Amino acid sequence: MSASAAARLPVIEVFGPTLQGEGRMIGRRTMFVRLAGCDWACSWCDTPYAWRPGALAPVERLGPEDLLRRLGALGPDCRRVTLSGGNPALHDCGPLVGALHEGGYLVHVETQGSRAPAWLGAVDTVTVSPKGPSSGMAPDWPGLGATLAVAADPDLKVVVFTEEDLAYAAEVGRRHPGVPLTLQAGNRVGEDDADSLLARLRWLADRALGLEGMGDVRVLPQLHVLLWGNRRGV
Amino acid sequence: MSASAAARLPVIEVFGPTLQGEGRMIGRRTMFVRLAGCDWACSWCDTPYAWRPGALAPVERLGPEDLLRRLGALGPDCRRVTLSGGNPALHDCGPLVGALHEGGYLVHVETQGSRAPAWLGAVDTVTVSPKGPSSGMAPDWPGLGATLAVAADPDLKVVVFTEEDLAYAAEVGRRHPGVPLTLQAGNRVGEDDADSLLARLRWLADRALGLEGMGDVRVLPQLHVLLWGNRRGV
Repeated sequence: MSASAAARLPVIEVFGPTLQGEGRMIGRRTMFVRLAGCDWACSWCDTPYAWRPGALAPVERLGPEDLLRRLGALGPDCRRVTLSGGNPALHDCGPLVGALHEGGYLVHVETQGSRAPAWLGAVDTVTVSPKGPSSGMAPDWPGLGATLAVAADPDLKVVVFTEEDLAYAAEVGRRHPGVPLTLQAGNRVGEDDADSLLARLRWLADRALGLEGMGDVRVLPQLHVLLWGNRRGV
Repeated sequence: MSASAAARLPVIEVFGPTLQGEGRMIGRRTMFVRLAGCDWACSWCDTPYAWRPGALAPVERLGPEDLLRRLGALGPDCRRVTLSGGNPALHDCGPLVGALHEGGYLVHVETQGSRAPAWLGAVDTVTVSPKGPSSGMAPDWPGLGATLAVAADPDLKVVVFTEEDLAYAAEVGRRHPGVPLTLQAGNRVGEDDADSLLARLRWLADRALGLEGMGDVRVLPQLHVLLWGNRRGV
C-alpha cells in the first residue's frame, strides 16, 4: 500500500459550516468530517449510518488533499473542522490533522475513549465521550484513561438518559477530577422531539444541580437537534 | 462613609446553584449575585426588576462577608459565582471579587461595556454584551473598547432580534476581531416561549452561518429560558 493510500480515510459525509451542537464547543461555527466505522455499538447511537451493518451509508476513500479541497469549497471563511464518526480514533488521522493545521484550521475531535492513537495529541481539542449503562456498552476504564492521557486538551462528555447513566457520569468525574465534565441530555432518533428533549434536559439539570460531587459540571442539550431535529448534514 | 459601608453592594438577589444560561459559560453550574442599578434602559431588558423605576425589587445592602456566607450556604460544593445586574460595573466590586477569590471561587461578570472599572481586570472571565439597535440604545464604541481593554479574559455577546441587530453584531466583530463573539437569540419576557425562542434561534443560526465576516462566531440560546421560562431565581 502506498503512502497516499494509507492516508486515505473512509468518509461518510463532509458538511457545514453549521453549529457544533454539543459539548464545550456548543454553538461554534464549524465544518464536520464524519468517518466510517465504530468499535462500539451503542443502543441509542444517533449516527448508525456511520457504522451499523445494514444501515451504513456509502463510504468514500479520501486523502487529506481531497478533504481540504472540499472543506475550502464548503466554507471559505470557516476555520474550524470537527472530526467525528463512528469513532475517528480507529483511523490514522495524523496526516489529515497535519494538513488541516497547515491550512490554518483548528481541529476538534469527538471519540468515545476506547482507542488512544498518538495523533490525538496533535489535535487542538478532544471531546471524549464514554458511554453509560443505557448504551449497552461495558465501561472501558483503561481505554478512557489512556485517551485522556494522550489528548492535548481533553474534555469529557457523558450522554445521560437514566439515573444509572448519571451515577456512571459521577464516577467518570470522580476518576478524572481535573478534566471538565459535560452531561448531555440523551436523544433517541425517531422518538424524541424538542419538547421531550427539553423535558429530559430539565430533569437532568435538576438532578445534576443537586447531586453530591458534581461541583463544576456543565449540563447541555444537543443544540442542533433542538434546532433542526435529527436530520443528517446539519 | 466607613470602609465597610463603601464595600456594601446593592443586591437584588443571590441564587443558585443553577446553570449559566448564556455565552461561553453556557451550561456551567454557578451561583448568581444580581446587583441593582443600570446606566442603560434597553427596551427588551429581561431583568427590569434590577433597575427600572416602578419595577425595582427590594434592595439589600450587603458586604463581601454577608455574600460569602449566603453563597456558602446555598452551594457548599459550587465554586463559581456570576456577578450580574443591571450593570455590576457601576459599583466597586473589587473587595467582593477579592473576597471571592480568597474563598476559592471563580468569578464571572456580565456587563454591557459602558463602564470599565479597574476591578474588571481581576475577574476570571468577563462577558461584555453591547446592545444593538432593537434595544433603543445608541452604540458606545469608546466604552466598549475601554471595557474590553481592562477585562482580563473578555468575550463578546450580542443579543439579536432583527437584521439591524445582526449588522450591528457584525460591526462589533469587525472592530474587535480578537475577542470571541457569541450571538444570542433574543427573548421577550411575557411574549416568548420555548417554541418562539427556538424559531428565532433557527433564523439566527441560518443567517449567521451564511453571513460574510462571521468566521468564528458562536450562536446560542438562553438555555435557562428554554428550560424554565422567564422565571426569577433560576
